[in-house]
Amino acid sequence: MTERLFDTTCIGNAIVDVISKADDAFLAAEGLTKSAMMLIDMERAEELYARMQPGIEMSGGSAGNTAAGIASLGGKCAYIGKVRDDQLGSIFTHDIRAGGVTFETVKSTNGAATARCLILVTPDAHRTMNTYLGACIELGPEDIDPDIIAASKVTYMEGYLWDPENGKQAFRKAADIAHAAGRQVSLTLSDSFCVNRYREEFQEFIKSGVDILFANEEEIKSLYQTTDFESALAAVRDQVDIACLTRSEKGAVIVRGSEVHAVPAETNINVVDTTGAGDLFATGFLYGHTNGHDLTSSGRIGVMAAAEVISHYGARPAVSLKELMQKKLAVSPS
Amino acid sequence: MTERLFDTTCIGNAIVDVISKADDAFLAAEGLTKSAMMLIDMERAEELYARMQPGIEMSGGSAGNTAAGIASLGGKCAYIGKVRDDQLGSIFTHDIRAGGVTFETVKSTNGAATARCLILVTPDAHRTMNTYLGACIELGPEDIDPDIIAASKVTYMEGYLWDPENGKQAFRKAADIAHAAGRQVSLTLSDSFCVNRYREEFQEFIKSGVDILFANEEEIKSLYQTTDFESALAAVRDQVDIACLTRSEKGAVIVRGSEVHAVPAETNINVVDTTGAGDLFATGFLYGHTNGHDLTSSGRIGVMAAAEVISHYGARPAVSLKELMQKKLAVSPS
Repeated sequence: MTERLFDTTCIGNAIVDVISKADDAFLAAEGLTKSAMMLIDMERAEELYARMQPGIEMSGGSAGNTAAGIASLGGKCAYIGKVRDDQLGSIFTHDIRAGGVTFETVKSTNGAATARCLILVTPDAHRTMNTYLGACIELGPEDIDPDIIAASKVTYMEGYLWDPENGKQAFRKAADIAHAAGRQVSLTLSDSFCVNRYREEFQEFIKSGVDILFANEEEIKSLYQTTDFESALAAVRDQVDIACLTRSEKGAVIVRGSEVHAVPAETNINVVDTTGAGDLFATGFLYGHTNGHDLTSSGRIGVMAAAEVISHYGARPAVSLKELMQKKLAVSPS
Repeated sequence: MTERLFDTTCIGNAIVDVISKADDAFLAAEGLTKSAMMLIDMERAEELYARMQPGIEMSGGSAGNTAAGIASLGGKCAYIGKVRDDQLGSIFTHDIRAGGVTFETVKSTNGAATARCLILVTPDAHRTMNTYLGACIELGPEDIDPDIIAASKVTYMEGYLWDPENGKQAFRKAADIAHAAGRQVSLTLSDSFCVNRYREEFQEFIKSGVDILFANEEEIKSLYQTTDFESALAAVRDQVDIACLTRSEKGAVIVRGSEVHAVPAETNINVVDTTGAGDLFATGFLYGHTNGHDLTSSGRIGVMAAAEVISHYGARPAVSLKELMQKKLAVSPS
């Protein structure tokens, strides 16, 4: 058997997105917080879905989007996440594999259906997410393939994985294997409400074992319970090797020790649907970082990938990011 | 119970589309005929799907698209078609109902899964369709609700419905009920290969009971086995009350007895995916016709609806056709 090597292995909740348009009045009537991710049960999912506009279905899941993006850039990527052996599970499996990602997690054969996220996109392009975790609750330490983790330069995990009960055990096992193999561990904080749910555990995990942290401005401020971005930045810089802090139209700030690299956002984008912006920033940064680019250059690839994904509906790239990178940044694929 | 009235009831194969990009080399390697619809079995569907790019899923089905469009224009529309009680069946049911279409056909509870159509969109915006009929084969005369048909100004059926075994019986029953109630029957020829499969039956059915016929240039030429559009037009004009013949960028020709009305196509469209062009022309024409508009004006609404649907991926409108009609044609909804 040939030894496999991966730039990045992404671990997360394997979800199919159901994307519909909605207006602010609908969000208010349903008691939804704009731009947040809310966990819902099957009953609530069916009730909400019944009131939503006609939708389109696309594979999603935060780390799944990041993985699909890395493959689109030409990177070598693996994904670990749990679906059931149902129609949505087949769609998720097809899409991530067809994009070139290695995905070998065993499907569950009973219990909850494949997870779905009901995404409401308002005219201001913000997305409000309602996630039924379904089969994701079955992901556990037994699904972490040690050979894949040890063969990955970076193991990247989404904070959302703290929600299903066994997710954090899977998470910790993966981090231990990665570090034992001399590899890097990366985490995204996912969502400020997610940070609220697990602040202390996240702080502990970050301190003890995260090399590369991704967070947006709200998330990092929530983590350190401050209203000031600079204070949050000062707090995080001693905790991790690299912190990538995204700030929407203000671009991204990448911090390593005393270094601070600001990367501007792209301008003149027709923003249609912000779903996946953070996921695809991570895509670009991780691709760059694992392929020998410096922090600023990796950040630029991240900004480019995020700009592509917010210019259309859906959280995965609609064009080849590899070609886009060559065209826009004159970066040759590795 | 309040008496229900419908502008149009659409009957067809209830299908979820799986839309992916492909190049001409892929079509050639898979032995596919560009722009045609090919019937495939489950084994072939899985084999082809495994080689396709990541996709997006959207409800489809020719007559389903027409129905969704009529509702988007503000028309009163019912749909009859068969799905199974599975995840894709739930998606189809949600989407057509959420758009405002009455859809009450009982789902099948065993046997084949909900139908899907693997659609390959090439860079020239042509779509090549591969349909696994699945649960559609279960649609039969028992699914034709006589009250709905009798309450519909027009009953519109897709030629594709000739493919599943019981479809044509359902079709004939619906036509008989409609005529007995003094209503009109409409047929689309669907696809030139479909015409090849059922030419004599189609000719017979059209002669005996079709009031409004929809066909594109290839289909009407195939029906009368001529290479000349004018000959086909001459042949059809005595067979039906109204014939709507669509000619892509040459627009549409609407024929009633000795009258011939030419409606130009819209120009300056960024054509992305031609899936649904014919379905949405029928949408606009039927909406106009059942709401008191003359033939030319109805044809213009058809051209407008078709232009909208080919400007994006997917075969159902992405915006409110009612608002588009008010804006582009200054036509007030009825």
